[in-house]
Amino acid sequence: MKKISGGVCAAKGFTASGIHCGIRKDKTKNDLSLIYSEKPCTAAAVYTTNLVKGAPLTVTKEHIKNGIAQAVICNSGNANTCNADGIEIAEKMSALVSENLPISAEDVVVASTGVIGQKLDITPIQEAVPTLCKSLSKSGNDDAANGIMTTDTVDKQIAVSFELSGIECTIGGMAKGSGMIHPDMATMLVFITTDVAISQEMLQKALSTDIQNTFNMLSIDGDTSTNDMVTVLANGMAENEKITSDNDDFKTFMKALNSVTVGLCKMIAADGEGATKMLECNVSGASSKSVAKAVAKSVICSSLLKAAMFGADANWGRVLCAIGYSKADVDVNKIDVSFRSSKGEIKVCENGHSIDFSEEKAKEILLENEIEILVDLKDGEFSSSAWGCDLTYDYVKINGDYRT
Amino acid sequence: MKKISGGVCAAKGFTASGIHCGIRKDKTKNDLSLIYSEKPCTAAAVYTTNLVKGAPLTVTKEHIKNGIAQAVICNSGNANTCNADGIEIAEKMSALVSENLPISAEDVVVASTGVIGQKLDITPIQEAVPTLCKSLSKSGNDDAANGIMTTDTVDKQIAVSFELSGIECTIGGMAKGSGMIHPDMATMLVFITTDVAISQEMLQKALSTDIQNTFNMLSIDGDTSTNDMVTVLANGMAENEKITSDNDDFKTFMKALNSVTVGLCKMIAADGEGATKMLECNVSGASSKSVAKAVAKSVICSSLLKAAMFGADANWGRVLCAIGYSKADVDVNKIDVSFRSSKGEIKVCENGHSIDFSEEKAKEILLENEIEILVDLKDGEFSSSAWGCDLTYDYVKINGDYRT
Repeated sequence: MKKISGGVCAAKGFTASGIHCGIRKDKTKNDLSLIYSEKPCTAAAVYTTNLVKGAPLTVTKEHIKNGIAQAVICNSGNANTCNADGIEIAEKMSALVSENLPISAEDVVVASTGVIGQKLDITPIQEAVPTLCKSLSKSGNDDAANGIMTTDTVDKQIAVSFELSGIECTIGGMAKGSGMIHPDMATMLVFITTDVAISQEMLQKALSTDIQNTFNMLSIDGDTSTNDMVTVLANGMAENEKITSDNDDFKTFMKALNSVTVGLCKMIAADGEGATKMLECNVSGASSKSVAKAVAKSVICSSLLKAAMFGADANWGRVLCAIGYSKADVDVNKIDVSFRSSKGEIKVCENGHSIDFSEEKAKEILLENEIEILVDLKDGEFSSSAWGCDLTYDYVKINGDYRT
Repeated sequence: MKKISGGVCAAKGFTASGIHCGIRKDKTKNDLSLIYSEKPCTAAAVYTTNLVKGAPLTVTKEHIKNGIAQAVICNSGNANTCNADGIEIAEKMSALVSENLPISAEDVVVASTGVIGQKLDITPIQEAVPTLCKSLSKSGNDDAANGIMTTDTVDKQIAVSFELSGIECTIGGMAKGSGMIHPDMATMLVFITTDVAISQEMLQKALSTDIQNTFNMLSIDGDTSTNDMVTVLANGMAENEKITSDNDDFKTFMKALNSVTVGLCKMIAADGEGATKMLECNVSGASSKSVAKAVAKSVICSSLLKAAMFGADANWGRVLCAIGYSKADVDVNKIDVSFRSSKGEIKVCENGHSIDFSEEKAKEILLENEIEILVDLKDGEFSSSAWGCDLTYDYVKINGDYRT
């Protein structure tokens, strides 16, 4: 498996485009994106469990009920959520794509991201879709990745190539962060494309399994969004033998998918609102997978630990505190905690108690911008990772006045 | 019922003291406090559910197993948690009190608050306890309330007097905030004193019932502390007919206790780390009490809403979002949301959808320092309140470098 460029356009048969149509005031960022496959795709998706759901999710669910999609349209700057005419607007967005490309409106995945509860004016989208469709290209992935950004400071793209029984295949993806991120059985907006031939059932299985250990283990601020979804479109153009069961090719596909989703998780975490550091909590020695996950997630979500990491303060008591309230069944008197970065690794807590360590060395390690928090529960064989970021002045600044 | 001064010394027979003994570097704040009752008290307590528990909690639990206590010693500046010698140190603190007052070490409630995982040196405490005991006085409540403060900017005291069958009784209390506050079946440090005569069983029932709707509905930052507890000491010196059942006197006592606990909740919320605003979420029209509580707590805990409140931004979409992920069974298409303060009230969302409202008026309301978020679920008769504060630059500042 190797990393390649091209994002959502890396796989055979996929093109993309993105433009500024006027939903956002800031003209330096695109606000409307399109992904298109020249052949119909098998489609799988997972959605937010927030009871307040963006209208585009309702429309997308309906559209891919038959397991088929061929295009994705997504705007930023407005979530089209909690609006009385939300469904109508989302349906119009699909219809506009259908009018300009040789596909049915029912084969369009629709997504929106941005402010909740403000009416989404269809006019700028209506005016822009013809151009958006005409400008679809194999190098349009950058424009598309740019068009789904909200408070993101960088776009998030990844692609890998790998072989299935000797046939070269590709998976690519793009994602947007960067606040209201605390996925629960789903995630933020992620669009994944692949040329692998795979049944809808196995594609959905791959996605639903993978997100349990990737996007569902990511938290920026504890707020599960109303508009989260991840979709995968697979157009089969790699011409591999179609995956229809849990065979070796499926396992290889799962690995490739996982490298894409973990890569996007880390990018989203690193670009969390206001973040200066990407945090990864690696829990080992757990008595079960669920204990490992609960502990990793609890640590990564602690506001106090996040603020301590911003200050490069080796305040491991906050790690123990977060483990203690995680509801996971752990023996707190066995826990070891270390911090690791490119500057080295330092143990700061052993068997749940304080030990002597060099504050100077700890500071040096924690001043880096990618920090691992290592928790060994010494109680079994299970492990888990979770990703997040530090809590900074800029998070407050960004969210203290987001709408105006 | 009327508010009176005196805090934990307001009730008959209670005295208190507080001094700076040297655990904290900052000499302008006390770091060691004592409360004493001239007669033995019926004692009740609730403790944090965090699996990582401060050693003082273990010792206190053991000491009040027989339902009796006569003094409280509490230090700030060090939580005495995750230390190998924690229990020993906490026992020494009790023993020191016993050596200087005519009571047994087993009748002392011990508490500590501050940094986790740093050894607590007994020496300064040992040197200070004789003076601490000698300086006990009826006006020592201010010194004592000062001595339990950590990052608190103001001390938190309250007292009320009320009548039980014609006999004047008093309840007073003191609390410390102001970070790592997300109580779960317990709370931060709160010491309540009363001269009411009441059985241990009924006192524990009163406390355990009350906290479900008071301290358990308070969150500053989502982090449940390792050292939380609330204790009530009742010395019976009001000479009312002893409360031993759920009679009218018990109901009156519950009301008085509730006015003390709600008062302390609001003080803690208003003085949350870095807070500029106290937030109160009042949920009405819920189909059950548990729905009302889940919704109120979820709204008050949302980092995004907390940041919006700091910016006086009427971003009601974040209220809806937090209700949506609360796991409570609500009909999101029925929800009304309003904001209220001393400057008035404004409805910003009706039936889960956006409505026109004056942004200018909303700003004026939200610029005040006590904000109510009113959520009407229009689905039943139950209601609940929760308290919290805004998320500010100073929260990050305080917690980015707490230990040094």
